[in-house]
Amino acid sequence: MPKEQQLAMKYMEALTDHDYPTLRRFYSRETIFFDKTANTTYTGSRQIIGFLQRAHEGVLEYRLNIEHMFNTGSLVVIIGSYRLRGPGDQFGKPGKIIDLAVPGVTTLKFDNNTERLIEQMDLMDYQTMSDQLESQ
Amino acid sequence: MPKEQQLAMKYMEALTDHDYPTLRRFYSRETIFFDKTANTTYTGSRQIIGFLQRAHEGVLEYRLNIEHMFNTGSLVVIIGSYRLRGPGDQFGKPGKIIDLAVPGVTTLKFDNNTERLIEQMDLMDYQTMSDQLESQ
Repeated sequence: MPKEQQLAMKYMEALTDHDYPTLRRFYSRETIFFDKTANTTYTGSRQIIGFLQRAHEGVLEYRLNIEHMFNTGSLVVIIGSYRLRGPGDQFGKPGKIIDLAVPGVTTLKFDNNTERLIEQMDLMDYQTMSDQLESQ
Repeated sequence: MPKEQQLAMKYMEALTDHDYPTLRRFYSRETIFFDKTANTTYTGSRQIIGFLQRAHEGVLEYRLNIEHMFNTGSLVVIIGSYRLRGPGDQFGKPGKIIDLAVPGVTTLKFDNNTERLIEQMDLMDYQTMSDQLESQ
């Protein structure tokens, strides 16, 4: 596996494990965390970690199932689905445990020298997510 | 199928059919055609059509096999693979007919009112492409 993809795996592991100390080493003050489908952007370690802590609150299981991964240079593209099991409060289902598998694409662009993340871009299938929520 | 995805299908059909009159109706002077993996950008109908004409020269077959498609509003995400059969001259294989199936992700952002394309972004697995070329 190319070293860029190895780095991407390490990062995604830290992300899905809520391993904030490791994540902090990946982020700089310039890192851009961008959801192109939700049209939201967080910039810099502090903003990003703050967002992740809110988003992951109470989450019981968070996993990425990779279907295909490739890279050109320091840009890594991951196609897969995000499995999320946790409290439904954030999804309009208070008091329930919800279980989602959301298809998505994540691109990660790393700085070759520092190995820090320059940009994460997510494309998430929110329609499938809301269809799954509907039936829970 | 949501109307945004129907529009995306029409556009992708025009693209893979080399139907330039239809493509011209999708592009404006502001349309951005962006390959994030190759780090190339073409802006405006003229530049984009010019690029496509060069890229498609002599191509015998060009098809998109869609594996998954979703949209949030006017942003459509297509995950699939591009099948390309044509002369190898552009790929360092002069005199040969090459046959490629390149995994890729394409996002299309449309203007809701005019139905014109604001941005196309491609993510292509060039490593798989070059592996396939190697053996031809």
